Amino acid sequence: MVLGAGRSSSAAITYLLDHAAEGGWHVTVGDFNVQSAEERIGESKNGTAIRFNIEEAELCDKVIASSDVVISLLPAAFHPIVARHCLSLGKHLFNASYVSDEMNSFHEEAKSKGLLFMNECGLDPGIDHMSAMEVIDRVKAEGGKILSFESFTGGLIAPETDPDNPWRYKFTWNPRNVVMAGQGTAKFKQENQYKFISYPQLFTRTTNVQIPKYGNFQGYANRNSLKYMDTYGLNGVKTMLRGTLRNEGFCSAWNILVQLGCTDDTYQMEEVNKMTHRNFINSFLPYDDVEMVEGKLIARFGLEASSAEMEKLKWSGLFNNDLVGLEKGTPAQILEQILNKRWKLEPHDKDMIVMWHRFTYELGKKTHEIQSYIIMLGDDSVNTAMAKGVGLPLAIAAKLFLEGKVTQRGVCIPVSKELYDPILKELKSLGIHADEEERVLD
Amino acid sequence: MVLGAGRSSSAAITYLLDHAAEGGWHVTVGDFNVQSAEERIGESKNGTAIRFNIEEAELCDKVIASSDVVISLLPAAFHPIVARHCLSLGKHLFNASYVSDEMNSFHEEAKSKGLLFMNECGLDPGIDHMSAMEVIDRVKAEGGKILSFESFTGGLIAPETDPDNPWRYKFTWNPRNVVMAGQGTAKFKQENQYKFISYPQLFTRTTNVQIPKYGNFQGYANRNSLKYMDTYGLNGVKTMLRGTLRNEGFCSAWNILVQLGCTDDTYQMEEVNKMTHRNFINSFLPYDDVEMVEGKLIARFGLEASSAEMEKLKWSGLFNNDLVGLEKGTPAQILEQILNKRWKLEPHDKDMIVMWHRFTYELGKKTHEIQSYIIMLGDDSVNTAMAKGVGLPLAIAAKLFLEGKVTQRGVCIPVSKELYDPILKELKSLGIHADEEERVLD
Repeated sequence: MVLGAGRSSSAAITYLLDHAAEGGWHVTVGDFNVQSAEERIGESKNGTAIRFNIEEAELCDKVIASSDVVISLLPAAFHPIVARHCLSLGKHLFNASYVSDEMNSFHEEAKSKGLLFMNECGLDPGIDHMSAMEVIDRVKAEGGKILSFESFTGGLIAPETDPDNPWRYKFTWNPRNVVMAGQGTAKFKQENQYKFISYPQLFTRTTNVQIPKYGNFQGYANRNSLKYMDTYGLNGVKTMLRGTLRNEGFCSAWNILVQLGCTDDTYQMEEVNKMTHRNFINSFLPYDDVEMVEGKLIARFGLEASSAEMEKLKWSGLFNNDLVGLEKGTPAQILEQILNKRWKLEPHDKDMIVMWHRFTYELGKKTHEIQSYIIMLGDDSVNTAMAKGVGLPLAIAAKLFLEGKVTQRGVCIPVSKELYDPILKELKSLGIHADEEERVLD
Repeated sequence: MVLGAGRSSSAAITYLLDHAAEGGWHVTVGDFNVQSAEERIGESKNGTAIRFNIEEAELCDKVIASSDVVISLLPAAFHPIVARHCLSLGKHLFNASYVSDEMNSFHEEAKSKGLLFMNECGLDPGIDHMSAMEVIDRVKAEGGKILSFESFTGGLIAPETDPDNPWRYKFTWNPRNVVMAGQGTAKFKQENQYKFISYPQLFTRTTNVQIPKYGNFQGYANRNSLKYMDTYGLNGVKTMLRGTLRNEGFCSAWNILVQLGCTDDTYQMEEVNKMTHRNFINSFLPYDDVEMVEGKLIARFGLEASSAEMEKLKWSGLFNNDLVGLEKGTPAQILEQILNKRWKLEPHDKDMIVMWHRFTYELGKKTHEIQSYIIMLGDDSVNTAMAKGVGLPLAIAAKLFLEGKVTQRGVCIPVSKELYDPILKELKSLGIHADEEERVLD
């Protein structure tokens, strides 16, 4: 049972349908919009499309009761609701989202009922965990001691896509999550110091990442890296940092929208029905009876009129007089609406995932470094790298489970060899694999 | 029944005790720390001190059941709990805090039971509402049309207090509220444009306020000014802005703490028991194997080493190696702990309240301006201007009510002539009054 047939669902559903006959499975796909589910099933005889709505409790119970294994591709906030139905009906659950406190609270009950609740089994989180653990376990097996771990992943666009787009970015996954990304405080450890980056500082505290053949990127810290020290078996490590990768220049322009409060989702703005893009930006700038929006931004953020930041904001139409086109909305909702006019993936657009890990470790009295990176390209706006990256690990994990090859139970994430080994092997056969460079630092 | 005998409670309790005999009242003061309540009562025969704890529901019911009128000086978050007890026991309630959504939801029930739930009846909110409404009603009565309203209030220290303190600020009310002030988004209207200031921008978007004989101050926007357009009968006004007043230079130094995330109250920091002041600041700055905390701050915020901002941070001990002295804490809790070492009001310290309104209005085809300001000085660290400003309006309102002079019922704030007229008159007799300057602008 696959819940959700939206963006990023294509690869998971295709994989499951392709393996349904040999596994003796039937794949049901439920979506609020039954047509989306039908499109994903296509001509396959091994799948059925149904209408599904997470907000109808009876329907949820009926749909989940009729399944053996549930794969939730719904927005992260809905996973605990699905999990509660799975707990009461005795069903296994797979999803690609971060383990929330609520999800975590189901661990003991799921385990005692012999249920597997697999989370963070997509791209990031997901492939990043698995490819990192593969290196960490290998270094440890060789007698090495990990000193530092840094990891950045980004869902970007391919170099040939939309060459005039100065952001080098489009919405390749949930646009709302892109707009809200980084809210809260990033927590990590660097050289044995605990570090905390507030949201207003986040996009000014970037790390440069250079990837052979693919050029230079910038990463910003992502959520709470500290909790993965324990998960990865890296307690005592000096540096532990997970982050998000963007093309150079993205962060300094995005920072202006953050500083202004354009990504705030906590209140409704006024008179949105009459609001233009330009009005929207001006709402966050001081009143001035002479200076224009552009001039106020330049003065406030110490920019040049011809700066890369101003070029990006202008390209996104933020200074034009088009109506926003919403009746009401929070700043975050309005910003998403405006950006989507230029950042929507066109049918021929190709996205690109870039994942990069850097490990340092001590072995034989020397410090070694491993850089490991994965690049994935999408085929078009439906068969995106994002859909493959999120969906394939999830579908492969479900297949392994149905084949009886997963012994873990309760709430878990794919950091054990039992899971990452066969999943990484199969991803490799599908063209997704890590390149590595190793050197001795001293 | 007065709930809470902490900071700012002295003036209200003294006033009530002074008028108890003539009113035929008995004043009970309840506090978690019964000794505080006893100190406030002193030798008076018209008062009783009791132990009170808002978290013990049975005790609350017993205490509130035994009273006629409840004055809550507890932290704002507890007022709805008190209100629910008052609703079920049929008691009237007075407090000096902003009306929360929850408090607002009690309006119909309170009104139908004939109960008065008076809120925002302290200093700011409180005296600012009353002194503003006095002018607004007067201008309207003369046939004028209000064009703009701006109002700033600050609880500062008297010019002679702590002359070496470069912030010109100490904790004269709840320190936690000072540290958290401004979180959320400020909303106001300026020249017919709706304006929104995000927290990271708030302390950089100040308004200069010059007060005759008292010098120059800076104000930053406070919460949601828009909702008072309706409350004040000023729908259609071009400019509506309420704010908080500080001495010059405060905001640009405080902004650094805001930007760094030092005022965040949403997560627990790591290893707080071993943390020094200097470690605390360094937690929010990038790792650097050469540069010191001071150097990192200077570079990050484009400051001079000898800048007024750096002087203030240094004076507050933020760069020294003293232990914080807490076992655990959020950034906001730790910052409060550090600041309190220098910002605690000493017995001989005098505080000062500065309140300033500016109105423009149209009358006889001319635009007029009224500036109205109130300055209040404290006597010492107990009988503070803050305690008088917050406590006296509340106590006077309760007296008027007990004398049968208040006809309003339900959830309300003191913007009607019935309330502000006698309260302002009595405040004047106690030495608290507004000075006014009026001129024609064109």
